[in-house]
Amino acid sequence: MRRAVKIKAELLTLIKNNGSFLIVSHFNPDGDAVGSSIALAMGLKKLGKKVHIANRDKVPDALAFLPSSGLVGREAPEGVVDVLCVVDCNTMERTGLKNLKASKTIVMDHHIMPDNAGELWDNDTLNHSIIDPGISATGEIVFSILSELGVVIDKDMAVNLYTALLYDTGGFRYANTTPESLSVASRLVAAGAEPWRITKELYESVPYNAMKLLAAAYKTIEKDGKMAWMTVTKEMLAETGTTAEHTENFVDYPRKIKGVEVAVFFREEADDLCKVSLRSKGGINVQKIAAIFGGGGHAPAAGCTVKGPLNEVTRRILDAVREALRKS
Amino acid sequence: MRRAVKIKAELLTLIKNNGSFLIVSHFNPDGDAVGSSIALAMGLKKLGKKVHIANRDKVPDALAFLPSSGLVGREAPEGVVDVLCVVDCNTMERTGLKNLKASKTIVMDHHIMPDNAGELWDNDTLNHSIIDPGISATGEIVFSILSELGVVIDKDMAVNLYTALLYDTGGFRYANTTPESLSVASRLVAAGAEPWRITKELYESVPYNAMKLLAAAYKTIEKDGKMAWMTVTKEMLAETGTTAEHTENFVDYPRKIKGVEVAVFFREEADDLCKVSLRSKGGINVQKIAAIFGGGGHAPAAGCTVKGPLNEVTRRILDAVREALRKS
Repeated sequence: MRRAVKIKAELLTLIKNNGSFLIVSHFNPDGDAVGSSIALAMGLKKLGKKVHIANRDKVPDALAFLPSSGLVGREAPEGVVDVLCVVDCNTMERTGLKNLKASKTIVMDHHIMPDNAGELWDNDTLNHSIIDPGISATGEIVFSILSELGVVIDKDMAVNLYTALLYDTGGFRYANTTPESLSVASRLVAAGAEPWRITKELYESVPYNAMKLLAAAYKTIEKDGKMAWMTVTKEMLAETGTTAEHTENFVDYPRKIKGVEVAVFFREEADDLCKVSLRSKGGINVQKIAAIFGGGGHAPAAGCTVKGPLNEVTRRILDAVREALRKS
Repeated sequence: MRRAVKIKAELLTLIKNNGSFLIVSHFNPDGDAVGSSIALAMGLKKLGKKVHIANRDKVPDALAFLPSSGLVGREAPEGVVDVLCVVDCNTMERTGLKNLKASKTIVMDHHIMPDNAGELWDNDTLNHSIIDPGISATGEIVFSILSELGVVIDKDMAVNLYTALLYDTGGFRYANTTPESLSVASRLVAAGAEPWRITKELYESVPYNAMKLLAAAYKTIEKDGKMAWMTVTKEMLAETGTTAEHTENFVDYPRKIKGVEVAVFFREEADDLCKVSLRSKGGINVQKIAAIFGGGGHAPAAGCTVKGPLNEVTRRILDAVREALRKS
């Protein structure tokens, strides 16, 4: 079976020849960012390196179960490190961190590079970085780097990397799930990652008040033709004692309805402001719809923040979705 | 990487040396039963064999998307076939079919054998059968048999086998997910199975009225200590125009609550009869609770049908769960 990711010899040499490392990732870190950062740190420590992890934001509660999650600090260490590893992120801007001092920089990422990549990174950095949007998760890159370096993946590293893979492939469900993702997953389970334990932490640990919020939100689901939508009001959050972060992925629920091509989730932020998430199951590019309202994203998943009361925003967005469906 | 399943030489010889096959499986067939049966039939046909599939029940609507699902007939062909393949099931009783005529029989299954297996099958059959509860899905057995026979797994076979694996591992989430399950899955994706397309069919094709039923059921979720439960009444089914089959897996929803060890789903069948499903997330053996009420199942998943009005059945079951949790 072929290796998940081809690792450049220059990158391996750089790691072997240096002693101190700082690992950073994007702010608001997700499972791939946190899991990849921790696994990389654990692997480098096994090789006798001095390693720090810094993130602008704290590890989300849902990921606190990750072994060694305490390694993720909020600030960079003083002084100059040998190598800065920018993980699951490909611009310094996305790290939210400033004035990091390092002799060399490696980027390990699977997001699409911005057009001005040449201005953001020097040639030396680009030469030994791994940036490949064809890879489903940064965890696969870290797995391959550590394997090439001869690091034996132990159970704690496997749990971190398995979580990284699960997170970015939607539990091996999204279109980015490749033979390599599943092959790496297979080896991580062999190394001690337990799918059911990780599943319980990631998908079966919904706080009771968040479940009550979801119950209220389910009642709002409506469907019209090939679009369906769900709404959460300020009142629903207040009544259940929940916050906006509990609504993450709520847009997935209306998407599950048979025959639905576009799903929308509306969250009332204030009397005059709504957050809108859009998902497409296939043919419709929802990034184009979000762009009309000043938002952004990708063809299958986009979002925007729209001024106006909930009922008016709902009407305007649904009109735009209806128009996109009509034209398709 | 080691082969998913070790296949006996006698089994391969038996297949090679015979010409006509009848494939049967358990009644109320699920994704593993249907996917494994179809993939095996397609593979044997590629080898020039004459093949029929018979099932007592029709393929469920949710699995109608499987390539060649039309191959699954309801009745066995007339006459004597060379080989009867009993797939995803290890007793003739569970097939619900009678008077099947075959010269030889092969059982391919991963369920635990009943104690009287020696009476159910002759030694010849047991010698070349594959019955191994350590395997996560019968689809893995079929994959290995076809691979050993030199059959190239095409896209349609891969979709059937991938669905079989997904079904019995809960989307690679249950504790039975092994390195081998994921390795076989990797090879099936390489052969053309598309995880996102299959996900859409299996998990994102909820009929709108079933979604409305789920919304009503969500409102009933309650939690007390380490137990949580959900209820569907006859009235809710009537109001949403749904039937009992739409409540499949509803017990998974209360199970997702953080801190819940035992989840229960109550479905009112009649004024004086309730169907109860029980799930355990860890330490509690819910089969023992179901057994008190004349039901059965396994340690993590069991069920029973209890006489009495809904409120009374609810009270009795929850008392039993509370008692089990107290003792644990």
